[in-house]
Amino acid sequence: MNKSDNLFNLAGKRGFFFPSAEIYGSKAGFWTYGHLGTLMKRKWENLWRNFFLKLGENYFEIEDCNILPREVFQSSGHLQHFNDPIVESVKSKEKFRADELIEEKTGIKAEEFDAGQLDALIKKHNIKAPNGENLGKVQMFNMMFDLKVGAFGKDIMMLRPETAQSAYLSFKREFNALREKLPFGLAVVGKAFRNEISPRQGFYRLREFTQAELQIFFNENEMDKCKDWDLVKKYKIKINDKKILASKLKLPKFYVYHMVQIQKFYLDLLKIPKDKFRFRELNEKEKAFYNKIHYDIELKLDSLKGWKEVAGLHYRTDYDLTNHQKGSKEKLEVNIDGKKIIPHVLELSFGVDRNVWGLIDIFYKEEKERTLFNFNKNVAPVEVAVFPLVNKDKLPDKAMEVYDLLKDDFGVFYDCKGSIGRMYRRMDEVGCLAMITIDHETLKNKTVTLRDRDSMKQIRVKINKLKDVLDKFLDGEKLSKLGKVI
Amino acid sequence: MNKSDNLFNLAGKRGFFFPSAEIYGSKAGFWTYGHLGTLMKRKWENLWRNFFLKLGENYFEIEDCNILPREVFQSSGHLQHFNDPIVESVKSKEKFRADELIEEKTGIKAEEFDAGQLDALIKKHNIKAPNGENLGKVQMFNMMFDLKVGAFGKDIMMLRPETAQSAYLSFKREFNALREKLPFGLAVVGKAFRNEISPRQGFYRLREFTQAELQIFFNENEMDKCKDWDLVKKYKIKINDKKILASKLKLPKFYVYHMVQIQKFYLDLLKIPKDKFRFRELNEKEKAFYNKIHYDIELKLDSLKGWKEVAGLHYRTDYDLTNHQKGSKEKLEVNIDGKKIIPHVLELSFGVDRNVWGLIDIFYKEEKERTLFNFNKNVAPVEVAVFPLVNKDKLPDKAMEVYDLLKDDFGVFYDCKGSIGRMYRRMDEVGCLAMITIDHETLKNKTVTLRDRDSMKQIRVKINKLKDVLDKFLDGEKLSKLGKVI
Repeated sequence: MNKSDNLFNLAGKRGFFFPSAEIYGSKAGFWTYGHLGTLMKRKWENLWRNFFLKLGENYFEIEDCNILPREVFQSSGHLQHFNDPIVESVKSKEKFRADELIEEKTGIKAEEFDAGQLDALIKKHNIKAPNGENLGKVQMFNMMFDLKVGAFGKDIMMLRPETAQSAYLSFKREFNALREKLPFGLAVVGKAFRNEISPRQGFYRLREFTQAELQIFFNENEMDKCKDWDLVKKYKIKINDKKILASKLKLPKFYVYHMVQIQKFYLDLLKIPKDKFRFRELNEKEKAFYNKIHYDIELKLDSLKGWKEVAGLHYRTDYDLTNHQKGSKEKLEVNIDGKKIIPHVLELSFGVDRNVWGLIDIFYKEEKERTLFNFNKNVAPVEVAVFPLVNKDKLPDKAMEVYDLLKDDFGVFYDCKGSIGRMYRRMDEVGCLAMITIDHETLKNKTVTLRDRDSMKQIRVKINKLKDVLDKFLDGEKLSKLGKVI
Repeated sequence: MNKSDNLFNLAGKRGFFFPSAEIYGSKAGFWTYGHLGTLMKRKWENLWRNFFLKLGENYFEIEDCNILPREVFQSSGHLQHFNDPIVESVKSKEKFRADELIEEKTGIKAEEFDAGQLDALIKKHNIKAPNGENLGKVQMFNMMFDLKVGAFGKDIMMLRPETAQSAYLSFKREFNALREKLPFGLAVVGKAFRNEISPRQGFYRLREFTQAELQIFFNENEMDKCKDWDLVKKYKIKINDKKILASKLKLPKFYVYHMVQIQKFYLDLLKIPKDKFRFRELNEKEKAFYNKIHYDIELKLDSLKGWKEVAGLHYRTDYDLTNHQKGSKEKLEVNIDGKKIIPHVLELSFGVDRNVWGLIDIFYKEEKERTLFNFNKNVAPVEVAVFPLVNKDKLPDKAMEVYDLLKDDFGVFYDCKGSIGRMYRRMDEVGCLAMITIDHETLKNKTVTLRDRDSMKQIRVKINKLKDVLDKFLDGEKLSKLGKVI
């Protein structure tokens, strides 16, 4: 089995995630987060909120509907442009994504190409369907789900294909409710929906997924200004395989500042190894026409055979507000220092599920006698586990006492299923950092053992010192500094 | 203007919530949470999670797709039974909900009645359309949104009309991944969607809304057992206008235990005044046929003219798992002490938006010279505000320093828009508990003023004691105990 299969098996068995509605035979591109996946996803989202919303005292989160009026996507361009290029095999009429067939055969990233360009590439490289048949002409298929709303079904609305529009729609209302100053940020963490033709690659291309996006509205004239420039200018940014000093980049300072913050988020908070993180600039053909500057954030994921996009930093100009102003006939310009302007937008866009998958891939380790995730506490679904050594002699009661003592301060899990060895393995497999065992000695001297996931070594800790010791241990203190290793 | 209008105006102006996609002329039943509403909703959800998931060490949260296969709703009964009774005015062909017209005229809660029963009531009470016209026959309209998934649109899937099904679908997988013990709880906090014919009453009946539901799977034979019975048996439960001792209720102990916990959540954590909270038992006609015991949790809301359901506690028997077992042909029985059983379900179901609206209604106060929300810190979107007294003399810089000092420990908002009096009023109107002002004295002696929202009194606090003082103040300590009132 390859790594991807191993990860999916483990994820399903332990409760990270599994196919949605699987008892009915699930549909591709729909997944359920189990209890561990939910804990991990929520941790990631809160980490993201705490980090990015605190970059500005004028950055806020909103929450909008998934169902939005059709007119929104007329203005945004999604009705016209948000298409998947599909192509049929001539005999069996199976449908495929033309750009995916091309990329598999040639390596050319063709997602943003039009039908004519794709037809030409199929011809030039003599690309066949996976079933060996010839391919017909490329056709464009709109990827939004539409809905009939109301008793007569006259009102057509759409499931949003990205969360970004929700921030643009609320911009004027929130700008006025708040400080009426730029830069001004609106974040949305929520679902988005795309009617993908062939959702494959497990968690990477989903029909229903979660995005965390921050739209920063700013004055175009101030794009090369940055109040905290001194704090970031000496930072080295990883672009492709090079490390480049922030101050040497030929990009506006406001843009570079956010590159630095994104890299810090990945390296310092998520603890992604440096060699598995990079920015990659998209070329003119790859990037959406309204993005003037566009770098993807990529992680190197063995399970997906290389560098994969997990986030993007997009300078979208005034495309969004200008088009919504035109479409809605509502003035979206604002008064800044006596001048009316349409703010420009810098978008920080993260695919939450892709990021969760990235963590699952990167922190997965196979050792001789066990598999484990070596998550740090910022992303580990379970931080501390509590077990009775055996399911008798009043040890379970004592273990529940210890569980109750810890449950308000840590992400803690109580287990009593099977032998202690199996419980340790199970907790290794969910990436739990610290395992507490209540044994017969506990009843005598009020101490428990603390096992370190990574070294598998243990120390004994007094119960009344346990919270304090766990705080330090989860913050990265070595086990040997916290007690006598046994 | 009535209270409801006042609340909507204030909510829109300050950024609690406003109509979704309003620049395009919004559709009824779709709302956006602004920055304050989002903070408040998230606080409510986290409070709910922390409280209800900690009732059992075997209770967990999962997150599922909003889009589910049609087969799920065949088994759940939604395809057959999840209908709104609609009725047309004979001339103008306007559509109305028959049960709503009946309830308005007669007070009879007719939501669960069938078409024949509704027709009979319309005739008996001579009910007309609001436009004065006669009404035609009642027709049933299915309230689920359906979607075509895939390139050919052959796969029909539905937006879930409740989150509960997601827990049933994941039951077996999660039961096995976890301890294989009952009672076992699975919670879902997420969106649900209903194609309401006439969504009215503002936030009360929405087409897209959020539910927080906990499905507890248990052994039917143990329904009258409860390990923590001694802790709750002397608690007085408010049912209608009576207070009844838990131990006197003729209901299973496991059910009563959860009634007590729900009442504690509302009275102790949300601080709902006792006279605005009650349980109400639904009669046979009102409740869904699969609910064997069904109490609603109601709040008294002036804006909605009386007692309104915000949550429910439903003993659903084995209806759900039995039907999904039949429909999916997957065994959903589990092995408990050597016996195979289908667990029964106790459902705790909360409408999050209704609860947020309930808080907005109940804590709204109009005083002679101001309006305010007197939220407690558990639900207040903003706990602490920081202002410079004037926008000059380096006070804004100092205020930003204080903001930075506090932002990691409190829900804090920085403001500098307008005079100090206007900033105070604005923060009263969002229910902020503590307002910190940086004035010229701050620059001299490193003290700030702390203003109490409720009394509008102030004390001076040293900046290096500020966190400590705020902790105590937000926990309910009187201002006069924390410093000399000026």
